[in-house]
Amino acid sequence: MTGFPVVLPAGADRSTLGALRQRYETELFDRVLPFWERHSPDPVHGGTFNNLDRDGTVYDRTKHVWLMGRQAWMFSTLYRTVQPRAEWLALARSGVEFLREHAVRDDGLVYFHLARDGAPIYRQRKLFSECFTALALAEHGRAADRPALLHEAEALMERIFGWAEDPAPLGRPQLAGQRPAIALAVPMILLNLIEEIAGASWRRYAVEVDRLLARVRKHVHNRDGTVDVRETVAPDGDLLDGPDGRLLNPGHAIEAGWFVQHWAQRLGDADLSQLATRIVADAYRRGWDAEHGGLFYFLDAEGHSPTQLEWSMKLWWPHCEALYGHLLGASLTGSEDAWEAFRETDRYTFEHFPDPEHGEWFGYLDREGRVTHRFKGGPYKGCFHVPRALLLCVRRLAEMEDAAETPP
Amino acid sequence: MTGFPVVLPAGADRSTLGALRQRYETELFDRVLPFWERHSPDPVHGGTFNNLDRDGTVYDRTKHVWLMGRQAWMFSTLYRTVQPRAEWLALARSGVEFLREHAVRDDGLVYFHLARDGAPIYRQRKLFSECFTALALAEHGRAADRPALLHEAEALMERIFGWAEDPAPLGRPQLAGQRPAIALAVPMILLNLIEEIAGASWRRYAVEVDRLLARVRKHVHNRDGTVDVRETVAPDGDLLDGPDGRLLNPGHAIEAGWFVQHWAQRLGDADLSQLATRIVADAYRRGWDAEHGGLFYFLDAEGHSPTQLEWSMKLWWPHCEALYGHLLGASLTGSEDAWEAFRETDRYTFEHFPDPEHGEWFGYLDREGRVTHRFKGGPYKGCFHVPRALLLCVRRLAEMEDAAETPP
Repeated sequence: MTGFPVVLPAGADRSTLGALRQRYETELFDRVLPFWERHSPDPVHGGTFNNLDRDGTVYDRTKHVWLMGRQAWMFSTLYRTVQPRAEWLALARSGVEFLREHAVRDDGLVYFHLARDGAPIYRQRKLFSECFTALALAEHGRAADRPALLHEAEALMERIFGWAEDPAPLGRPQLAGQRPAIALAVPMILLNLIEEIAGASWRRYAVEVDRLLARVRKHVHNRDGTVDVRETVAPDGDLLDGPDGRLLNPGHAIEAGWFVQHWAQRLGDADLSQLATRIVADAYRRGWDAEHGGLFYFLDAEGHSPTQLEWSMKLWWPHCEALYGHLLGASLTGSEDAWEAFRETDRYTFEHFPDPEHGEWFGYLDREGRVTHRFKGGPYKGCFHVPRALLLCVRRLAEMEDAAETPP
Repeated sequence: MTGFPVVLPAGADRSTLGALRQRYETELFDRVLPFWERHSPDPVHGGTFNNLDRDGTVYDRTKHVWLMGRQAWMFSTLYRTVQPRAEWLALARSGVEFLREHAVRDDGLVYFHLARDGAPIYRQRKLFSECFTALALAEHGRAADRPALLHEAEALMERIFGWAEDPAPLGRPQLAGQRPAIALAVPMILLNLIEEIAGASWRRYAVEVDRLLARVRKHVHNRDGTVDVRETVAPDGDLLDGPDGRLLNPGHAIEAGWFVQHWAQRLGDADLSQLATRIVADAYRRGWDAEHGGLFYFLDAEGHSPTQLEWSMKLWWPHCEALYGHLLGASLTGSEDAWEAFRETDRYTFEHFPDPEHGEWFGYLDREGRVTHRFKGGPYKGCFHVPRALLLCVRRLAEMEDAAETPP
């Protein structure tokens, strides 16, 4: 439970909320989680596979650290907050131990790809493998009551804070022609990391949280009465020219929006809460394809063609983020617009992404909404965005149901 | 002129050939080259921009070294082999001098991105920036009668040969879990490099050419009576499992095919010539979208979904390679199938890619053939594939016309 206050939007009556919650629960517990429980474990070397074809067949045994960490986090949180099923904890433990043994180096840096047996294939010169490993360590430490793991996670997070300020140890050379620039991904992921790792003792990181929120704000620009969230800006927040400086990633902005909303609730900061609501609403409206429905993957703020070839595709994860982002906003403010946006996202998402035959969701659609890739797990799609969004929505819908029961 | 023998396919009569040649000449000289002459030069810092919007407006001043090198090669070859226009030579010189001053490091490694003023932004840990810089140096040295540049190119090419055998100096760490593997791109680009840099004195590199042709052959696998060209194989040529091992890139295979055909003609190797013809024909047939026309960007040899999000898009350059690949094969063998494939590619290409309003070609279409990106130049599209293919086709069509005139 979030414990955040509830203001019910018109239309969010108890029976509608109950039917939604039941549908999300069925999807999560009967159709999504069993797919990963059945098909992802590696019975030989431990850890989990993430490259799973439509029917769950492993089509590539490369192990992607982001995804193994995220799955271990997911099953740990399910064990801890939903139901203490031994098989969930065991699946999470298998991933956590595989990561500790094979992915984490002595210097704290973490590989990006591992071979089936754990031998390292590749390390990105970024800090996200480190972040998703820390998430897994912390949540599994809590779920399994192993405080040492939580301390490992905290120590890793402290190092991540350092790399976020000075990325030199990550190994990417800084060259003279590079414009000083900052990326939204860094503060938003760190805000989520503190929320997850620090839990109830988040006040220990209050200074860090303030600094990260200030960094996120630098990416939020006003534009004709709405806000644009730029993925990359100058260190002082000024706009940068060129495709990087103009890049919008609506799903990313929406995800950042609900991360910020969680902090606004915790901090009791009404202005911040309003900003978070606007980020979600405006990024969604800007990113929605009026012609074919669904959220674009990338846009250019000035209307140029994004240079990314896949810009017009509809990916599963921005829709996952929008489901929870809208539901949270609608339930905090009673906004009918947010509620309608949630219903619109829900319709598009459930019409296009779930696979009625084998469970889990397809990940990639073309602009018109046709499935372009049959696999359920790939190099960037694992057991994370779908079950996380469903679980968050189930929780929030339950809180809304409770509120609908209580006389005002 | 190639000087290669001509066997005319049925249907390739003199008037058809003449009309085709004229159309290709008009496209090249009136519609494609002027776009780059007008819009690409940087009047302030020298060198050329490649991020040009539909109408030629520069939308990003980042200078991409591959593309600056390729454009300098293109205008040098036009000056040397088509017409000694001073402005073509000056445009090429501007690129070559910019690269020599800013892109090439003392250790011979070459940057990938430069800022407008030449300050380095990024170096890939690969050898292709080096290859395209060497191409430009050599051809400009010949065009401008500056033998010192040709020697620079030869010296750089010798270093590239070394990096192709031992990539450690390129700086990408070799980790324990990486499977030993070789990439088609390396031998194919090196074969083109020797052809372009050595010119008539190619026999100096005969041993290297043999070795590179043997390396290309490792990527060519038989499959149900046709050949599959795998982008990545084990060092002995064995198939690798997983998406990398199954990856097909039809445009790349077709390009490799005509590179190999040029060597087969030079070496007088009939078996090699036949192999090159099969590579082009089979990669094309395999890569052609029976439903919507056009060549897919990527395919998986076993029918899995490629993990690349853009696999089903239709890009300009595979069609450029197919135009010349088919025309060369048809004109060497008299094959009606190859001639029909050329005509089919020609129809699709001219119906979809050229921009009648502003010149040059669009680069990116969705699977159904709709333009997805309005720009004419981008991070991977410059003044290269379109004019190179048109020029090669104009030359070969002229040779075919000559042959059609001569009584048998």
